[in-house]
Amino acid sequence: MPTPHMQHDLLYGNIKLFAGTASPDLSQEIADYLGKSLCGRDIIEFPNENLFVRLHNSVRGQDCYVIQTTSSPVHQNLMELLILIQTLKLDSAGRITAVVPYLCYGRSDKKDKPRVPITARLVADMIVAAGADRYMTYDLHAGQIQGFFSIPGDVLRGFQILKTHLLNLAPSLYNPVVVTADLGFAKKGRTYADLIHTGLAFIEKKRTTDIKNPHSLNIIGDVRDRDILLVDDEVNTGGSMVHAVEILLEHGARDIYMVFVHPVLSCNAAERLAELQVKQFITTNTIPISQEKRALFGDRLTVLSIGPMLGEVIKRANQGRSVGAMFNE
Amino acid sequence: MPTPHMQHDLLYGNIKLFAGTASPDLSQEIADYLGKSLCGRDIIEFPNENLFVRLHNSVRGQDCYVIQTTSSPVHQNLMELLILIQTLKLDSAGRITAVVPYLCYGRSDKKDKPRVPITARLVADMIVAAGADRYMTYDLHAGQIQGFFSIPGDVLRGFQILKTHLLNLAPSLYNPVVVTADLGFAKKGRTYADLIHTGLAFIEKKRTTDIKNPHSLNIIGDVRDRDILLVDDEVNTGGSMVHAVEILLEHGARDIYMVFVHPVLSCNAAERLAELQVKQFITTNTIPISQEKRALFGDRLTVLSIGPMLGEVIKRANQGRSVGAMFNE
Amino acid sequence: MPTPHMQHDLLYGNIKLFAGTASPDLSQEIADYLGKSLCGRDIIEFPNENLFVRLHNSVRGQDCYVIQTTSSPVHQNLMELLILIQTLKLDSAGRITAVVPYLCYGRSDKKDKPRVPITARLVADMIVAAGADRYMTYDLHAGQIQGFFSIPGDVLRGFQILKTHLLNLAPSLYNPVVVTADLGFAKKGRTYADLIHTGLAFIEKKRTTDIKNPHSLNIIGDVRDRDILLVDDEVNTGGSMVHAVEILLEHGARDIYMVFVHPVLSCNAAERLAELQVKQFITTNTIPISQEKRALFGDRLTVLSIGPMLGEVIKRANQGRSVGAMFNE
Amino acid sequence: MPTPHMQHDLLYGNIKLFAGTASPDLSQEIADYLGKSLCGRDIIEFPNENLFVRLHNSVRGQDCYVIQTTSSPVHQNLMELLILIQTLKLDSAGRITAVVPYLCYGRSDKKDKPRVPITARLVADMIVAAGADRYMTYDLHAGQIQGFFSIPGDVLRGFQILKTHLLNLAPSLYNPVVVTADLGFAKKGRTYADLIHTGLAFIEKKRTTDIKNPHSLNIIGDVRDRDILLVDDEVNTGGSMVHAVEILLEHGARDIYMVFVHPVLSCNAAERLAELQVKQFITTNTIPISQEKRALFGDRLTVLSIGPMLGEVIKRANQGRSVGAMFNE
Amino acid sequence: MPTPHMQHDLLYGNIKLFAGTASPDLSQEIADYLGKSLCGRDIIEFPNENLFVRLHNSVRGQDCYVIQTTSSPVHQNLMELLILIQTLKLDSAGRITAVVPYLCYGRSDKKDKPRVPITARLVADMIVAAGADRYMTYDLHAGQIQGFFSIPGDVLRGFQILKTHLLNLAPSLYNPVVVTADLGFAKKGRTYADLIHTGLAFIEKKRTTDIKNPHSLNIIGDVRDRDILLVDDEVNTGGSMVHAVEILLEHGARDIYMVFVHPVLSCNAAERLAELQVKQFITTNTIPISQEKRALFGDRLTVLSIGPMLGEVIKRANQGRSVGAMFNE
Amino acid sequence: MPTPHMQHDLLYGNIKLFAGTASPDLSQEIADYLGKSLCGRDIIEFPNENLFVRLHNSVRGQDCYVIQTTSSPVHQNLMELLILIQTLKLDSAGRITAVVPYLCYGRSDKKDKPRVPITARLVADMIVAAGADRYMTYDLHAGQIQGFFSIPGDVLRGFQILKTHLLNLAPSLYNPVVVTADLGFAKKGRTYADLIHTGLAFIEKKRTTDIKNPHSLNIIGDVRDRDILLVDDEVNTGGSMVHAVEILLEHGARDIYMVFVHPVLSCNAAERLAELQVKQFITTNTIPISQEKRALFGDRLTVLSIGPMLGEVIKRANQGRSVGAMFNE
Repeated sequence: MPTPHMQHDLLYGNIKLFAGTASPDLSQEIADYLGKSLCGRDIIEFPNENLFVRLHNSVRGQDCYVIQTTSSPVHQNLMELLILIQTLKLDSAGRITAVVPYLCYGRSDKKDKPRVPITARLVADMIVAAGADRYMTYDLHAGQIQGFFSIPGDVLRGFQILKTHLLNLAPSLYNPVVVTADLGFAKKGRTYADLIHTGLAFIEKKRTTDIKNPHSLNIIGDVRDRDILLVDDEVNTGGSMVHAVEILLEHGARDIYMVFVHPVLSCNAAERLAELQVKQFITTNTIPISQEKRALFGDRLTVLSIGPMLGEVIKRANQGRSVGAMFNE
Repeated sequence: MPTPHMQHDLLYGNIKLFAGTASPDLSQEIADYLGKSLCGRDIIEFPNENLFVRLHNSVRGQDCYVIQTTSSPVHQNLMELLILIQTLKLDSAGRITAVVPYLCYGRSDKKDKPRVPITARLVADMIVAAGADRYMTYDLHAGQIQGFFSIPGDVLRGFQILKTHLLNLAPSLYNPVVVTADLGFAKKGRTYADLIHTGLAFIEKKRTTDIKNPHSLNIIGDVRDRDILLVDDEVNTGGSMVHAVEILLEHGARDIYMVFVHPVLSCNAAERLAELQVKQFITTNTIPISQEKRALFGDRLTVLSIGPMLGEVIKRANQGRSVGAMFNE
Repeated sequence: MPTPHMQHDLLYGNIKLFAGTASPDLSQEIADYLGKSLCGRDIIEFPNENLFVRLHNSVRGQDCYVIQTTSSPVHQNLMELLILIQTLKLDSAGRITAVVPYLCYGRSDKKDKPRVPITARLVADMIVAAGADRYMTYDLHAGQIQGFFSIPGDVLRGFQILKTHLLNLAPSLYNPVVVTADLGFAKKGRTYADLIHTGLAFIEKKRTTDIKNPHSLNIIGDVRDRDILLVDDEVNTGGSMVHAVEILLEHGARDIYMVFVHPVLSCNAAERLAELQVKQFITTNTIPISQEKRALFGDRLTVLSIGPMLGEVIKRANQGRSVGAMFNE
Repeated sequence: MPTPHMQHDLLYGNIKLFAGTASPDLSQEIADYLGKSLCGRDIIEFPNENLFVRLHNSVRGQDCYVIQTTSSPVHQNLMELLILIQTLKLDSAGRITAVVPYLCYGRSDKKDKPRVPITARLVADMIVAAGADRYMTYDLHAGQIQGFFSIPGDVLRGFQILKTHLLNLAPSLYNPVVVTADLGFAKKGRTYADLIHTGLAFIEKKRTTDIKNPHSLNIIGDVRDRDILLVDDEVNTGGSMVHAVEILLEHGARDIYMVFVHPVLSCNAAERLAELQVKQFITTNTIPISQEKRALFGDRLTVLSIGPMLGEVIKRANQGRSVGAMFNE
Repeated sequence: MPTPHMQHDLLYGNIKLFAGTASPDLSQEIADYLGKSLCGRDIIEFPNENLFVRLHNSVRGQDCYVIQTTSSPVHQNLMELLILIQTLKLDSAGRITAVVPYLCYGRSDKKDKPRVPITARLVADMIVAAGADRYMTYDLHAGQIQGFFSIPGDVLRGFQILKTHLLNLAPSLYNPVVVTADLGFAKKGRTYADLIHTGLAFIEKKRTTDIKNPHSLNIIGDVRDRDILLVDDEVNTGGSMVHAVEILLEHGARDIYMVFVHPVLSCNAAERLAELQVKQFITTNTIPISQEKRALFGDRLTVLSIGPMLGEVIKRANQGRSVGAMFNE
Repeated sequence: MPTPHMQHDLLYGNIKLFAGTASPDLSQEIADYLGKSLCGRDIIEFPNENLFVRLHNSVRGQDCYVIQTTSSPVHQNLMELLILIQTLKLDSAGRITAVVPYLCYGRSDKKDKPRVPITARLVADMIVAAGADRYMTYDLHAGQIQGFFSIPGDVLRGFQILKTHLLNLAPSLYNPVVVTADLGFAKKGRTYADLIHTGLAFIEKKRTTDIKNPHSLNIIGDVRDRDILLVDDEVNTGGSMVHAVEILLEHGARDIYMVFVHPVLSCNAAERLAELQVKQFITTNTIPISQEKRALFGDRLTVLSIGPMLGEVIKRANQGRSVGAMFNE
């Protein structure tokens, strides 16, 4: 007699994993977790930059997952994701899930002034238009972006990856305080503070009357003589982090631990960060970090892998089992 | 020869204003601003609660605006809005704009835990499904909700209504500080603080180890001996405002001015607020406040009208002129 | 080896039953028929009337049924239905069926005058927009409403519930005739008449030249000295039924049996009906009738349950078996 | 200075009338009413039966009307309509209105048994999919079919065409009664009866226990020694009309006037009807009646033209003026 | 324990084959290949030409295939296909595949002049609007038509049916050359030439300055003293084939073999072709050829059946197995 | 009184031209033709490669044209186009036309083998999803791609740009013949041949039995001692053109003129072409050619501008006048 899990396994055909070119290591980790091979596919860039995809085997009726982060080169990676999705759809896949650990354009999520785009909605529309049935991602810049999609998705939280590490770290910290470098992240900072039962402080930018320096940084809350967990969802050029570290040190902070989910690290961000007086950098591999960049940080850098969690989420999605239950929710 | 404005007026037919039953005074104010009459319509509730609408005159090809806020009774007002929109569509209106000063379900805007809805997206989908071509509203709980709509909209800010009043008030305040009662509003608080060139403080809730009181309020920033602008986007039951006022007074705050855009004031919120040691309540009429409730506050309550601004926005929308330009944007 | 039914059971995952708040007893009856428990869910009404839903367990890939009739409070019940559907969709349900025994707004099904809505189409669009894959309901006011949906549905007939009772009743009737109180129901009246091999008569309203009483009732067909089956699809305020009974008695009718599928019974309909000289009231529980209302009728009221039939239809829908076969069709 | 009507005329570009091949005379009547020429177009049937359309002139931004009834050959006429619509859309027409005096498949409007289509919905979907923005038609078999369309439409009533003629006829009738040959038309029969202030009777079919004649016709209401207006929305093979006339004469009816909107007259219907003892046949030209068929009836046939009314409706639709006002509604 | 194929079989329910009226023999061949019976259905044409469908048994959750070619009567066959699809959808079929061996309107696939339709896109939209989830067809006039569909499909190639026959024929040919009668088929001609390792020649039409004969035929390439494979995708009236044979003979060609996938053979094409000096006609049964037409050709006509291939493709589609693998692709 | 053109101008608001960053010179040419300025907009690339757009002025109700070719960097240019479109839509533009002189991914237009994408359809879907109402482009790789769009478009032909130049050139050519380097372009080659009243020849690739050189080039038709117009729609790496020139010279061709619409010229195509023994290169500016590349060709290169034609087409689209009439069609 079929066991319950075998029953579930039939709901959506077999898992078929397809890796885009953006995150091959992560894709392999996921495949390893699931005890599967990545499905063969050719991805070719023609001399005119047009991309071409061919699947080695049929995916009719199967439960397909396209693993592709949308880090640099952003637009090429995004297009590759979309073409992979459409190819699967045209080959009559049973179900297609876009697995996009880092979803680009998250900061273009609202019209805070007139006559600007909401590009995150456009990206969601493109993924749906290409033919995705579901998506998986980590830490959207705003949780509301989930509402931009007309398809269901699993928005996972890097916090779940980071928390064990932080709990281990906590006992060694001196009177720690969680600091956010952006008021927009204030509420999520609360989650980190609750984890290690400590307080919060914020760095914020206020407008000045000085024409040359129209904004000045300001700390709200108490940081003096305390170890700092400086938290954010992503680090891009690192500019605000550099300024945050400076002002924290000016205000008498002790050791600083920088914690963030998405290591975008564009331009020379890695160089700038590595020079900072920061004790530890803790992040994940939603975006691959090159060996060159890793070397700049030496052992101050900890990159926690999302691979096993994504593998487990894919397994449960395929079997029709709860993902929330993984986090006791 | 036609003047440019006459030209524009033809882009979308003539303005036709329809008032739902939820905000008759505001609708009349808008009509007065535009020098127009509200269009005749019957709105009947049958004994089985089903609503019925009939328009008195044809709207073929006209530029129609349905003014209906979605305050209490929320679901009936929402349905009335949807039926009005569909009736206009079926009567071949040229363009239909839903003018919804307060859009319900704004706080259900993301899945912050598994297996919950994103009802704000559902409401957006319903408005689009009914046949609206555009919408206008004030201060969405999160700006990202604009991305839930697949149609364009004008999301206006109560701040633009409130700011003249606050600028007049500012000189009389003693060392003022802007305080937000919710970390999620921290960033918007900055706008108020910049307006009157002052600082920010936050009230936030942290988890405790005390089982009976699992959360405790906390002030981050400096409030002692300062006048307080306690700002938020909406006040619902007033619960968090009551607690905010208490803790502010405990920490030595001077006069408190409570400022918010949407006066939801559900349950006995008006009574609770009126009893507080608050010097002034400053809000708008995105939701009508009954005479009974107003009486509780006496002259401590200032309700600023959005009517003229909405009238002007409708005029510009009809003429194809910039709305951003009203705010030098 | 799996039996054929087990095979079918895998087509759509397992049956998951969700009850809205509108018809708890019926939901339990369906669950009992299927030998299942209702799935846990919280449905909360916040002080601002906004509804909130949370499912206790994951429904990924499962075959979900939301049981919610749309009787009073109509708009709240409708919104609750829609939010439940969207929540299931966002949680990646395999298939979602809206089970709505009584679908509101059925009488707003056509534009019989200009500038009115077709609200039944709007309701259908809302259910589809929320994410339903299928629906089940009883006796639409017009069969054509099924064509308003772009998704498949099972429109069941209360006649199938009522007919055994009526066949048992028939031998005791004296020269019976089936009477409809509305010409729009004339054709469906034929079905009842054929069941008990008898004739038809109609009550109809004609326009008069008397300004004070612009309409007068009229009977077409023969009712004198006959027992009457007065049939309709729903009874709302009961007004037309009261007039029908009066004119039937005036024309010499004997015993009157009132038969209808949907007991809307709004306003004081129950009181008005109970006072009538009617021998028996025969209806179903597509809408729950309160104990207070039932008491008014005493044993003259027979409420036949749709629960077992709905349970069987859900079972067959899940197994991919014919529903029509239940009725030898 | 432009007059108001000139203003309106700009709302949708100029009227462009396109005639399909199904109703050339009607199309010309409409053009004449509007003082316009029909726009040039080629409609070619290739030897493989595929149709091809080419417009002689550009329709960019213009307000286009495709006049095509869907009588025999039904499917070719329907396809021609759809191709014309798509051609206009691809040529960037400003607005496209399908003018379909008789819409085919109206009787396939509900699932009155399992496993049958709702073809009227399919036809509506096809017209929308082809690119129509609006439609105009006469007397849908069920008013609810208007709800099958997701675009607005004007559903006109043949009654408005017929009523002047009937009012002129009425004084010469002896104790007239309106009779419907189908219970489904009972309610619309009331409109005719109210027009001439008279009563109603119905012919209906009941099931018998006689295996050879499983149904028998029956008259409900009083027809003896009365002149009869036998009304229906369409006459197809004429079968039920033949039987109706027979039973009316058996029951002592005097002169019979047959009144119907859509002269489908398929098979040898014209021959069968012409042989009947009917005093007058009164219908419209929603479907063209050939000279051969007209000759069969001699002067007993009156065909009232919908041309001027359609011309006026098109004019008002183009100008954004009320159509309901034409009928004091 | 279920075998892998049994697992797959559950992905989409059981295969249910429905035959339209256009290709009964082919439908039976497919059924025979699969060891299944065709599902019972009534297809009725009413006297008013409207079609009606009723399925004998429920298809809930089943994997349904509608086999209907769209040859003459083209529009009726197309409508029958659409109605069958909708009926299956309304009966809650699990998946619906339109199996259309010859898809009509393939030559109306682009706007090569202004103000003409792209009817092939319209046909694709109609099939999707009716409710098909997938489609199967043979040799679209242009491969790009596959991109007109928003659903996946299997576009099979008659070449795969014809090639074994041609390989057997090849050794007996004298210095053969493949000739196409239309430059648009030039590239596909290459496939045939490669199969038998030979060269290509083209017949093309050039504009002349002679007003009476504005075009003249021309051969590009070498045909003298060679056996000819004259290839095309479909033969309609046969006109261009007649001219091709004439000019080939004029230029000294030897034996001519005419090879084409779709035997449209409209008007008197069969008669015209049969009179030609052609040694063999090789085609398929994507369109049925009547016994009368077959008789004209005698044993010069070879009709290869697509039945077994379609049966195998349906089997693989149902089981979620590769179709490309059938052709080593 | 308004002139007819003023009337038309009101149909869609005023022309607003927006230039993407891909073709600034062409955009300016179009603006100059129309006597307009390009509308101000910021297009910013953030350090994380995400693009940001802001319009300087409101476009409410205006007739907007986004001019952006999708040459290298292809994906960034495509995304910029999409973001511009969405920004216009969210700002309530009256109508949005994507003006894309060269549309990328045209060669990915069909599934000529299994398990590959139809990326041209994906690109069309993306443009529609972003919010375009119409599009304009030049010479799609296959005319059928127009059918991939669900919105109307103007597909212009480079032939109309090139033909005057070719007519001027023709008298100086010696016994010219038009040659296509790809059988897929054979039919379009006919248009060029008809223009200068000459014949056609083709270069085609056939499969060989030589494993090392699996394909060999072949000329079908007569080229010896003739001047050659070697025509194609686009030149990408130039590879097939290099081979074509070689084989033409081998077969005794005289002067060669290379004519193509889209100068993609990827990799070192310009260098390779410039070295060829080609007398003249004649192309257009659907894609900008850098000064460095132009220098390689010296005066052998003629680049004809599409600017004035596009300007005229935009003017006519705005005024609702025929575009086909520009070409006497």
